[in-house]
Amino acid sequence: MAIALGANRYGKSGIRLVTVDRDGERHAFTDLTIDVRLEGVFTPAHAEGDNSAILPTDTMRGACYALAREEPVGSPESFGLRLTAYLLEAAPAAKRATVSLLQQPWERIAGDHPFGFTRAGGGLRTAIVSRGRDGDDDDDVEVAAGVADLYVLKTTGSAFTGYLVDRYTTLSPAADRILATSVTATWRYTRLGLDYSQCADEVRRAVLDAFAGHDDSQSLQHTLWVMGEAVLAACPDVGDIHFSLPNQHHVPADLSPYGMDNPHQVFVATDRPFGVIEGTVTRAQR
Amino acid sequence: MAIALGANRYGKSGIRLVTVDRDGERHAFTDLTIDVRLEGVFTPAHAEGDNSAILPTDTMRGACYALAREEPVGSPESFGLRLTAYLLEAAPAAKRATVSLLQQPWERIAGDHPFGFTRAGGGLRTAIVSRGRDGDDDDDVEVAAGVADLYVLKTTGSAFTGYLVDRYTTLSPAADRILATSVTATWRYTRLGLDYSQCADEVRRAVLDAFAGHDDSQSLQHTLWVMGEAVLAACPDVGDIHFSLPNQHHVPADLSPYGMDNPHQVFVATDRPFGVIEGTVTRAQR
Amino acid sequence: MAIALGANRYGKSGIRLVTVDRDGERHAFTDLTIDVRLEGVFTPAHAEGDNSAILPTDTMRGACYALAREEPVGSPESFGLRLTAYLLEAAPAAKRATVSLLQQPWERIAGDHPFGFTRAGGGLRTAIVSRGRDGDDDDDVEVAAGVADLYVLKTTGSAFTGYLVDRYTTLSPAADRILATSVTATWRYTRLGLDYSQCADEVRRAVLDAFAGHDDSQSLQHTLWVMGEAVLAACPDVGDIHFSLPNQHHVPADLSPYGMDNPHQVFVATDRPFGVIEGTVTRAQR
Amino acid sequence: MAIALGANRYGKSGIRLVTVDRDGERHAFTDLTIDVRLEGVFTPAHAEGDNSAILPTDTMRGACYALAREEPVGSPESFGLRLTAYLLEAAPAAKRATVSLLQQPWERIAGDHPFGFTRAGGGLRTAIVSRGRDGDDDDDVEVAAGVADLYVLKTTGSAFTGYLVDRYTTLSPAADRILATSVTATWRYTRLGLDYSQCADEVRRAVLDAFAGHDDSQSLQHTLWVMGEAVLAACPDVGDIHFSLPNQHHVPADLSPYGMDNPHQVFVATDRPFGVIEGTVTRAQR
Repeated sequence: MAIALGANRYGKSGIRLVTVDRDGERHAFTDLTIDVRLEGVFTPAHAEGDNSAILPTDTMRGACYALAREEPVGSPESFGLRLTAYLLEAAPAAKRATVSLLQQPWERIAGDHPFGFTRAGGGLRTAIVSRGRDGDDDDDVEVAAGVADLYVLKTTGSAFTGYLVDRYTTLSPAADRILATSVTATWRYTRLGLDYSQCADEVRRAVLDAFAGHDDSQSLQHTLWVMGEAVLAACPDVGDIHFSLPNQHHVPADLSPYGMDNPHQVFVATDRPFGVIEGTVTRAQR
Repeated sequence: MAIALGANRYGKSGIRLVTVDRDGERHAFTDLTIDVRLEGVFTPAHAEGDNSAILPTDTMRGACYALAREEPVGSPESFGLRLTAYLLEAAPAAKRATVSLLQQPWERIAGDHPFGFTRAGGGLRTAIVSRGRDGDDDDDVEVAAGVADLYVLKTTGSAFTGYLVDRYTTLSPAADRILATSVTATWRYTRLGLDYSQCADEVRRAVLDAFAGHDDSQSLQHTLWVMGEAVLAACPDVGDIHFSLPNQHHVPADLSPYGMDNPHQVFVATDRPFGVIEGTVTRAQR
Repeated sequence: MAIALGANRYGKSGIRLVTVDRDGERHAFTDLTIDVRLEGVFTPAHAEGDNSAILPTDTMRGACYALAREEPVGSPESFGLRLTAYLLEAAPAAKRATVSLLQQPWERIAGDHPFGFTRAGGGLRTAIVSRGRDGDDDDDVEVAAGVADLYVLKTTGSAFTGYLVDRYTTLSPAADRILATSVTATWRYTRLGLDYSQCADEVRRAVLDAFAGHDDSQSLQHTLWVMGEAVLAACPDVGDIHFSLPNQHHVPADLSPYGMDNPHQVFVATDRPFGVIEGTVTRAQR
Repeated sequence: MAIALGANRYGKSGIRLVTVDRDGERHAFTDLTIDVRLEGVFTPAHAEGDNSAILPTDTMRGACYALAREEPVGSPESFGLRLTAYLLEAAPAAKRATVSLLQQPWERIAGDHPFGFTRAGGGLRTAIVSRGRDGDDDDDVEVAAGVADLYVLKTTGSAFTGYLVDRYTTLSPAADRILATSVTATWRYTRLGLDYSQCADEVRRAVLDAFAGHDDSQSLQHTLWVMGEAVLAACPDVGDIHFSLPNQHHVPADLSPYGMDNPHQVFVATDRPFGVIEGTVTRAQR
């Protein structure tokens, strides 16, 4: 039987890299979890068991630590740029190297401790750097950034009414409800050489302000759009932004069996099932 | 600022549907977790807060239970076919409905109890049915099936040698090692109307037998290829199969500090980081 | 301010030990996750930073691998006996060493493959060995064994009626319902030197048979009692057995809004909140 | 065979209660996850299937929502006091009611938004209220409070040297290392009627300051002691505090194969196995 190898990739997941920068007594540190993937022409490894083109995933792991020693890690985006460049150099059969980085944010204890830290709230910072072999460097590198697990909730300013009703629809319209989600978003930059940490801060602030400030949300889709618009307005170097928003439902408790009303005070937070809204907001073509 | 809505979809995740079929004293039951997604023209909901084209995700949930009452659930694939047909009928703005189903397998207690069950091993069964609005039904429906979390391990018959060595490579070649992974695979059928449960059994058996029987595996990529080949040989209605294979590393414990050798007897199983091998095996074009 | 150290213990969690036994072509292997704890007089380490009585947790880890090389691991109970003996010998300040072991069961692929395995269903096997320093060995060692994550469900033979009703009770009585739980149980042996693997099999079988065979269960408490009774009847060397049973609720879907009845066919499986029933069944004192 | 019921309890886990307090435009809200347990004389339910003394766990769930409507929830401790009082009143067979509460902290978006919130860092707040039936109220109620998942890390000021060395010890002493843990602590109050939220803030601050300020930590045990001492000094109403501290190891990457040194700059964060230090610090008896 004749068979062929279709799309394929391989790499290492869950590389945990922590680096400490010392400036006398005052330390800074970076906490990253890194995934690496290579795509390319790896048919001999699959079809013939010939590993001569395979850079071991253990080497990808080792390279993270070595590169972090050669130069300070800096932003996740800049480390991803360095790591993808190394990978394409090391693995000639690879046509594309993609590195996903997740940064756990920490803050100084008591606001200003020189070397003591506690995990900060506000979600995780992410970055994805993808570098292809063809073309010149600037053209064939894509840098995306993101946030993950950014939990937000508002206690009013959200409705869900006027939806399609069919034979299986039993949901009651809500003129005023709790809206809660965990924002996972990824945005793509239209050029390189940015101050990525500043951009990430600006996007994060735009997302939070738009979520809270959008006081006539008609749906999570509506809020997604408003958040996307705010990000594109705030950050000229962002080309588009993709959101994945689970709807963390809060249902008013039915207290009528106890002879009580419930004027939007007591809610049941539910886990499953949950709505999911996904969409990309992009700059319009002219 | 002019902005536009790019790719978007929405739906419900984590719908837990359990159905019992009674044939006198002897019962059968089906345990499904279902995700639903709609894609289509939902710009007014995003840009204007106009929900008139939005089928609520709560209705998707309700429809699962109602459809399960109207007719027996049957295989995950056949239920997905019914659910996607309903969704396109109910939501005129939707261009495509996709339903992912995960079935937890159970087996009868003591082999033959009429109504007592315990969770079976051997991973989860999955199915993905995607139905587009255009074209006639047979042409615009795609049925895929899969397994997830199928843990396999072999204690010999696996090597990893002859790989690319660069300045960051420290891994030692292994002529004989433990190979372990958790198989997640999805295969696409080339036609409809199959006995999907029988097909799923055949694929699962082919995967297991190929994994164990491939006694000169040179890498997880090599094993992926052999498993894919076995599936395509066993199941003429499978067009291609995609594997995602985490490499669950088992490293021989270094006992030399204790003055002991370790002739492949004692291993450290590690969690992170871990290799990941992903690839599709397809029938060759002639 | 005068302060004192109360109850304290320390150790290593999550030691992953896998061993392979080779008998020619036919291999067996053991997959353990081990937690170690020491209790004793460790006040100087806490109050003065004096580590001279502290056996490093890294040594506990290393000892697992070394002991596994010195002699075959055997049952989790027997390995726990060896490991606790070592720990008390190595750490003079320790008054008690406790080792908890979790064994992942695997079965041979295709029923009889010599070296290929897949994870078996039927829950995990556990053991807890606790050894005190005082007294002779037989008196001051306690061996307990268990199962964890043993999922069971029956589609009939379970009711819940006649319960206490107060002002906040809205639950409807159920004369026939689905009963589902994930059994976690720990039983204590009254003597040492048993065939622990055979005992574990017998207890597991007694639990499953009693769960399924108890066809007039009035509650999960009632089922707990019947399972406990069956275990004590089947295994004369078991002194008592403790169960922790989450009630994995399956609620009949309310299809009345769709004009449908639901004669115990379609159920919603819910995650949270969930009932929990915990209790010990012991041999009666005479 | 004569058998008996030993220790037993039952209840509901994972009750998700969210309440909104409105003061005009400015809202506050409380996000709790609640576990309820009853202990008492429930032998008839187990041994005879007689449920007449059993308060359904569904009623426990309903009561949480009803009580939250009757009066504002307030602190987790005060809600636990109300809920345990109700439970003993509703279930005459219960000898003791214990309620564990976990509060997810949220903070206002942009520091001062009237109704928009994002999850705060700094771990979760917990409370445990246990009320027995005998004695007068003040004597037979115990209120404990806690923090969970409070991640802290310091980049220096921690050592681990001078430990016991045996035949399986290979760990190298560390004069300067990263110390990281996730603090889970529970402290008991010696009297009732406190401002529990203020106390919880004070304890949390004492823990963080002691962790960071203890700049000659000789071990995680040593740090545990110092944190406990700081809490008891800061909060006269705390009688004792129990800590459970996983040692989240950060191992200097071995860069010598690449011809590089590593002066405490690049670390591998590891998941498993991990050390665990548990201990109670209490006021000394005089």
